[in-house]
Amino acid sequence: MPIKSNDPAKKSWIPVSDNSDFPIQNIPFGVFLTRDDIITIGTRIGDHAIDLGALHQLGYFKDIPLTDDIFLQDTLNDFISDGKKTWRLVRNRISEIFDANNPELKNNEDHKKIVLFTMDEIEMQLPVQIGDYTDFYSSKEHATNVGKMFRDPENALLPNWLHIPVGYHGRSSSIVPSGTPIHRPMGQTLPAGSDEPIYGPSKLVDFELEMAFITTDANVLGETIPVNEAENYIFGMVLFNDWSARDIQKWEYVPLGPFLAKNFASSISPWIVTMDALEPFRVESPKQEPQPLPYLQQTGKKGFDINLEVDITPENGESTTVTKSNFKYMYWTMSQQLAHHTVNGCKVNSGDMMGSGTISGPTPDSYGSMLELTWRGEKPLKLKDGTERKFIQDHDTVTIRGFCEKSGVRIGFGEVSSKLLPVYQSKKK
Amino acid sequence: MPIKSNDPAKKSWIPVSDNSDFPIQNIPFGVFLTRDDIITIGTRIGDHAIDLGALHQLGYFKDIPLTDDIFLQDTLNDFISDGKKTWRLVRNRISEIFDANNPELKNNEDHKKIVLFTMDEIEMQLPVQIGDYTDFYSSKEHATNVGKMFRDPENALLPNWLHIPVGYHGRSSSIVPSGTPIHRPMGQTLPAGSDEPIYGPSKLVDFELEMAFITTDANVLGETIPVNEAENYIFGMVLFNDWSARDIQKWEYVPLGPFLAKNFASSISPWIVTMDALEPFRVESPKQEPQPLPYLQQTGKKGFDINLEVDITPENGESTTVTKSNFKYMYWTMSQQLAHHTVNGCKVNSGDMMGSGTISGPTPDSYGSMLELTWRGEKPLKLKDGTERKFIQDHDTVTIRGFCEKSGVRIGFGEVSSKLLPVYQSKKK
Repeated sequence: MPIKSNDPAKKSWIPVSDNSDFPIQNIPFGVFLTRDDIITIGTRIGDHAIDLGALHQLGYFKDIPLTDDIFLQDTLNDFISDGKKTWRLVRNRISEIFDANNPELKNNEDHKKIVLFTMDEIEMQLPVQIGDYTDFYSSKEHATNVGKMFRDPENALLPNWLHIPVGYHGRSSSIVPSGTPIHRPMGQTLPAGSDEPIYGPSKLVDFELEMAFITTDANVLGETIPVNEAENYIFGMVLFNDWSARDIQKWEYVPLGPFLAKNFASSISPWIVTMDALEPFRVESPKQEPQPLPYLQQTGKKGFDINLEVDITPENGESTTVTKSNFKYMYWTMSQQLAHHTVNGCKVNSGDMMGSGTISGPTPDSYGSMLELTWRGEKPLKLKDGTERKFIQDHDTVTIRGFCEKSGVRIGFGEVSSKLLPVYQSKKK
Repeated sequence: MPIKSNDPAKKSWIPVSDNSDFPIQNIPFGVFLTRDDIITIGTRIGDHAIDLGALHQLGYFKDIPLTDDIFLQDTLNDFISDGKKTWRLVRNRISEIFDANNPELKNNEDHKKIVLFTMDEIEMQLPVQIGDYTDFYSSKEHATNVGKMFRDPENALLPNWLHIPVGYHGRSSSIVPSGTPIHRPMGQTLPAGSDEPIYGPSKLVDFELEMAFITTDANVLGETIPVNEAENYIFGMVLFNDWSARDIQKWEYVPLGPFLAKNFASSISPWIVTMDALEPFRVESPKQEPQPLPYLQQTGKKGFDINLEVDITPENGESTTVTKSNFKYMYWTMSQQLAHHTVNGCKVNSGDMMGSGTISGPTPDSYGSMLELTWRGEKPLKLKDGTERKFIQDHDTVTIRGFCEKSGVRIGFGEVSSKLLPVYQSKKK
């Protein structure tokens, strides 16, 4: 079935500004609270959100086999479970409904009043109930930088790194949508030169520039997903800030990996951009040397050219872009990550989320964390307001943006933006 | 409110054999499929399962504030969300209904036909939807054994171990109830003496003798649970076999911890035994030296005296008990684990599961894994059928049992029993 919704010549009757992330070629999926305080599944064109639950009730999807309440839900999980064929039918149909040449809804003022919202009328929610969340560590530049800083500069990559898309499990319960403020975590750290840990607020709170993909039901327990079929089980992608407390991490992570250093909060952008929308932006992923084991050998272009950047905005201050990177730098692809994740039969469900790991580019201005950008704080960054940052300060807002651009079409992710607040003042004794 | 259900003198009108894990003082909670193919929440006395959904519909809980459908669900999550006071009211009431001296249900044959099932009429399900699963590493004997084998015999414990209840995130999607067979996982391993990994079935599949606790909603994101309040947020406990592939683990786990070595399957016992039922079995936990940081300093008895044992049963063969351990050996208590888990504000939800880590006792016959019992395979175990085991073989069944005993009352967990099948034969290309 062709991805009709990707036609670059198509225009919508909803106004879309030139630099919008959400032309009619995007059609992402999200969940929002409407002006009537109803939770619904929707999409976005330009600066308008579209209530898909209402559109479906009005009969606009009558030719597609969908349950009546598929969009009247507070998560996308069931829709994602319907599978790739249904996602494509629905996107093609949305593309048709909002096509500038189609009068069907365009000329129906009553229906438009029901299904269209301006972005300031709605409140975006977490788009899926994330059953399990895995984070990979798949940028060679990032792994090399960390290895140089904390292990051996001459042997920065660990022996398994070039053979395995290294990953670990994260905490689903602490994943929040863009706009949710987070708190500086308390925890144990080991002061330099001491062998007695102390308890207090983390002093080294960092962002991690990541993207994440959302899966559909992929297998039964025991079953493996072949690398070249893996994309069939990926619904789409979001921007992801994997907040990290470097001092807590350093003391806790041997031997079982990062835990409290990561699970105090993780932030995602609220619109899931589908793999269909990203199809035109495929690129070759980096050449892998040594060649991975056969179960990880992929054919075709499995990388994606997605421009990424991070801003830091101090309270009442101007924003400073602190890094520009790109998803195409990922050494291990999403297909390889998913094939590896299931090589042992691990079950993957609808709504599971898998993070890329920090996406660092080859140059120092493309690194994906403050840890790398300031090289452990040794080279503070100057912000536009004249202040310096080694790590993130209370009341700073960190914003990640991402977009693809080709043949005059820009497909973007919007942003994930979250403010770091001081330590939470507990109401518990 | 007193825990009336714990009265050791109480007898039920349902027959209970002397060595049963499920006297009227237990009253665990589980989810099962009835003979009519209906999923319901239930409890168990002796060899009878009791349909709490039906009991509630018949009006037996009319004096307790419960929603009508609280037991007519396929998980315990909502009931657990109702909180400790409700759990206690419901258990006290069940204790009353099934008291030998109470004719209310005992003499109502019509009602008994509706609510009582023999165990062979029902099929136990996973009792909760596990949102997040965390595994700790809290047995000092286990951590010491592993440290001796794989790191430095002179400095077996890592520097953070005595300060932190070390833990890491696991995979919820692969947790299955007792009785579900599992498959030997495929994966990458590094042959001894080689620097090129190979792909194939794990050769070193192991059990881990663990217990796990199930939480209720405990906090908002950012909020900490104080160590001495932590038990208010623990609903109950299950037996837990954290299946592990030692060869996969060894190659993958540095630096981010175990991943595919663990997430192919984890098995739990289906009845959740409440903390109220375990109350009489409190004991002092091991003395902690050095004293932990204040946020981990607990008062009162926070350990529990729970006898544990593991059997291996070869196909068509006799069972051999390969280890006997006890939950009281845990160095870090559940209260400390939960306080530590939330010290950074990590959110804990109803139905989350937290594993103890392998529970090894002080003597070689009380170690909690084949890795330790056979000391990396150097000292194979002899089974009753004359065969030897270094690790678990295809078609072996591993069974964990656990029970408390005091003042003539035995409160048990039943068992978690699962068979290891050969590698899954995928239907995918």
